[in-house]
Order: sequence, then structure tokens, then C-alpha cells
Amino acid sequence: MEMITSQLWFDLLGTFVFGISGGMLAVRRELDLFGVMVLSLAAALAGGVLRDVALGDTPPAALRDARYLLAALAAGLCAFAFHRGIERLAKPVMVFDAAGLGLFAVSGCQKALSLGVAPLPAVLLGVLTAVGGGALRDLLVTEVPRVLREDIYALAALAGATVVAVGAWLGLAPAPVALLGVALTFALRVVSVWRGWRAPKAPGS
Amino acid sequence: MEMITSQLWFDLLGTFVFGISGGMLAVRRELDLFGVMVLSLAAALAGGVLRDVALGDTPPAALRDARYLLAALAAGLCAFAFHRGIERLAKPVMVFDAAGLGLFAVSGCQKALSLGVAPLPAVLLGVLTAVGGGALRDLLVTEVPRVLREDIYALAALAGATVVAVGAWLGLAPAPVALLGVALTFALRVVSVWRGWRAPKAPGS
Amino acid sequence: MEMITSQLWFDLLGTFVFGISGGMLAVRRELDLFGVMVLSLAAALAGGVLRDVALGDTPPAALRDARYLLAALAAGLCAFAFHRGIERLAKPVMVFDAAGLGLFAVSGCQKALSLGVAPLPAVLLGVLTAVGGGALRDLLVTEVPRVLREDIYALAALAGATVVAVGAWLGLAPAPVALLGVALTFALRVVSVWRGWRAPKAPGS
Repeated sequence: MEMITSQLWFDLLGTFVFGISGGMLAVRRELDLFGVMVLSLAAALAGGVLRDVALGDTPPAALRDARYLLAALAAGLCAFAFHRGIERLAKPVMVFDAAGLGLFAVSGCQKALSLGVAPLPAVLLGVLTAVGGGALRDLLVTEVPRVLREDIYALAALAGATVVAVGAWLGLAPAPVALLGVALTFALRVVSVWRGWRAPKAPGS
Repeated sequence: MEMITSQLWFDLLGTFVFGISGGMLAVRRELDLFGVMVLSLAAALAGGVLRDVALGDTPPAALRDARYLLAALAAGLCAFAFHRGIERLAKPVMVFDAAGLGLFAVSGCQKALSLGVAPLPAVLLGVLTAVGGGALRDLLVTEVPRVLREDIYALAALAGATVVAVGAWLGLAPAPVALLGVALTFALRVVSVWRGWRAPKAPGS
Repeated sequence: MEMITSQLWFDLLGTFVFGISGGMLAVRRELDLFGVMVLSLAAALAGGVLRDVALGDTPPAALRDARYLLAALAAGLCAFAFHRGIERLAKPVMVFDAAGLGLFAVSGCQKALSLGVAPLPAVLLGVLTAVGGGALRDLLVTEVPRVLREDIYALAALAGATVVAVGAWLGLAPAPVALLGVALTFALRVVSVWRGWRAPKAPGS
């Protein structure tokens, strides 16, 4: 097993919280235990698989390292067993999705940089990792993905990944920069929903 | 061309039967000849492409080896021409999908093991190969994928792939173990539908 | 940066026009600025990412070379700002999609051939590159992909890619052959829609 690093911690935690978002969405759609587990697993693992395939790092870590599967399974079971408690939080799917978005944008960008990818593609890969799992989760229940419907979604992921790339370029210590990136993405998502920020529609549409 | 081995046979047969399931679904949705061919091809080839990309084996065998394309095209044409006869079978999409599920779970796991992947990831890749094609087929006609709606679906694929991994670990001859895995997955699917096995929903949902 | 070659030109132009098709579809669905940008980016970049992942060329050019992102962003902004003018063209989504189909079928096949892939898989990769972006664009707005609904769609992409493979086999100069392939795919799409060509449905369906 690799040493526990902040990139791995964020990756596992992001896997878990995206898994919760998938499980909660499945419960909301009245799927049964297996539907909840499958949607949790898909939401939890898809972003990382997409990133690793795009980076040429195969087999993807999510399939190779049992800790990812354990995190995803744990998330599915938690969502199944504790959904009533989780529902008492305001907008649980949105909140867990926002946390996963930040964690994956940061860990995805960090992983790309650590493999020698240039800053701009690394930021793009962070965004792809972050929005990929949520998009698949939404598509699997035949919903238009939140990344299309929500105003500050891809931008929030972009902000977090950019913080990481800029921090690396400035030679700052990675762990505090990573925390800042996660917090920024999460805050942008949650505040934009709370404050009802709206983007303009196409003129004349 | 590679030598015909049991892994290749199962892969080609799985390609064909998933192609039939795709073609039958397209006919049911009243798509025309081209829609039938495209959905057959997508259902037939997607699982193998997903597996090979995740294994880093590029270009994917399904695109590189003409026999896969031939199997997929043959399946599409059969579904188009003989759908009335096939419809007389009970639940044809489900039955062909169950056969494909078993064949791909086993051949996917076998291929991963033969490329040196550890047992647990190999089982996961078998499941991914097995459910991937069916999920894409369902998504393309804007249906919630069977892997989410059906109770014993991913589990059936998991059972078949696990049989292969355990058999390899015990050093048993691969071909009979593979047949057992395919039969187990197929039986679990068909019996669970026939007997109406239901999984529990989330408590309080 | 690589030298500007006809394959790169077609790839960038295909990225741009698919981006327009995605942006126009987003405006039609009344998405806001961010939805338009995300759908443009997805439609513009997905085909190339799919092709590069299937070819093992990672990270994909679309993420590695900033010109692809610029083309995609430019397309999204154009669609957002000028959609009323673009709508005055007959069937803008279909026309831009047809152009992208041709450009990507040709550049995808060319890229595969240049990497040493055999002719038939190269043609298939051209088709995959061409239909992949459009299919993702349609799925993201929960529409059945045009490649399934339209009669002459995958076939048009196949024709263009085949022209490229045959031209390479005959040792002809690549640039005129490429132009012919693009024109053929585009013409097949537009004429089939204009003339209402219909394919047969399955007998007895």
C-alpha cells in the first residue's frame, strides 16, 4: 500500500462523500439496496477511473487499491442505513456533492501534477475528475447532470483545481494549499445555492 | 490472429449475445435498421472497450480484431431479421443480456488475470466489462440502466467473476471453471427474475 | 506546439463546430451561460478524448494542447452571443453537427493511421471519434442520441473515414483525400435530412 499522503486522503474522502451523494440520490428515487449500492459505487469511483484512464495510469487506482472500493461500499451502506438522519441536513445530495467536488478537483489536479502534467491540463484533469462522477450519477437516473443545470458547478471545481496549480507553481506547501482549494470549491457551491446566484441566459433566448 | 482460447470464445459469444440484446431493445423501441445496428454495436462492443481501456490494452481488441465487429454486425442483422422469432422466447432482452453478463464477467476477469492483475481488481474488471455494455445500451435509449433497477444484476456478474478468480487461485483448469462462472451468473439472473426476488428498500424510504 | 498539419486543422475545426452544435442545443434547451459553456465543451472535446484514450495517447490532446480548449471555449461563446443569427440558418444544430462529423471522422482515422493502426480499426476509430461527441452532447440533455435516431449518421461518418483509409492505401496525397472525405460525410448527412431518406424498420415491428 502507498503511504498515506494528503492526495490519497482527499481521494479516499472524495470517494466516500460522492458515494454518499449517489446513495442519497438512489434512496430519493426509491431504488432498493442494490440500486443504492450500484449508484453509490458509480458516483464514488467514476471520477477517479476517468482521471486515471485519461492519465494513462491503468488499471485505475479505484479498481487496483481496495481502499477505494471499501470507501465506496461504506458510503453506500451508510446512505442506505442512515438516510433519514442524513436527510435532516439541508440539501444533503448537494452538500455531499459539493464536498466531493472540492476533494476530487484538488486531488485530481495534484495527481496530474505529480505525474509531470503541465499546469493547465492538470487543472482540466482536476475538473474532469470532479465533475465526472456526479455527471455519471445523474445520467444513470436519467437526470440532466447538475454540471449543466447549476450555475456555479464546473466553475467551483475549476477554482479549487486552479488554487492547487498556482500553489504548486509558487512552490507553496501542498497540504494547506489543498485544504484552501477544497474549501474554496465547497464554499462557492454552497454559497451560490444558498444565495441563489443566477447566470445570464443567452440574449434573446 | 490469436489462437482460439476459451477466453476469446466467451468474449466473442458475449459480444454476439449482448448485440442481440441491443438489437431486440432497438426493435422494441421501433428504431429503424440503422438504429438497430448502432444499438447492437454499442451494446456488443462497449463492455470490451471499457475493459481494455481500463487495462491499458489499446487499441481495444473490439476495434483491433475484426472478429468482434463481425460478431456485433451479425447480432444486429439477426435481431433485425429474426426479431419476431426471438420475441417468442420469454423475455428475450433479459435472457440474452443474462448470457452476455455471464460470458463477459468471466472473460473480463480471465483477461485481467492473464495480464497480471491481482484477483480483487480482476473481479472488479470482470464486473465492469459485464455491466458496462448493458448500461450503455440502456442509457442510449434513455432508460435507467438495468444494473440499477434489477435486484440481482451486478451481484450475478460478481458471482461469475469471483468463481473465475477463486478457480485461478486454487489452480483449477480454466475452461470448466469458466463454464461454471457463466452458468452461475446466468442462473442467478434468470432465477431472480423468474422467482421475483426483491431486495429491501432503505428503511423509512 | 506541433506543426500545423491538415489533421490538426481538421481536428481543431471539428472541435469548434461540434462546440457550436453543443452550444446551440444548450440555448435551445434554455440553459444559462454556464450550461451553454459546459455543453459546448463536452460536445467539442469528448470525441477527441475518446479517440486518444482508445489509442493509448494520454493525456488526450484535447486536454494537453491549449488550442483545443480555446477552440471549444470560442465555440461556446459564439453560440451564446450569436445564437439568433445562427438560428436563421436552416437546422443549425444538424448542419454544424454534420460538419463536425466529417471533420472528426477524417482526422480521427488519419491520426490512427499515423500511429500505425491497421486500416479497418483506423476507420472504426474515425467513426468513434465522429459520433462520440455528438452522442455525449445528446445524452447530457437526456435525448436519445442522433446516431440512433437518424438514418444516415454513423454511415456518413463511416463513408468519410473509409475515403481516408482507401486514399492512404492507394498512396494518394492526404490533404485532398481528407477534403473529399469531409465533403462526402457532410453531404451524406445534409442530403439525407433534406431528402428525407428513411431506412426500413424491422419486418413485423
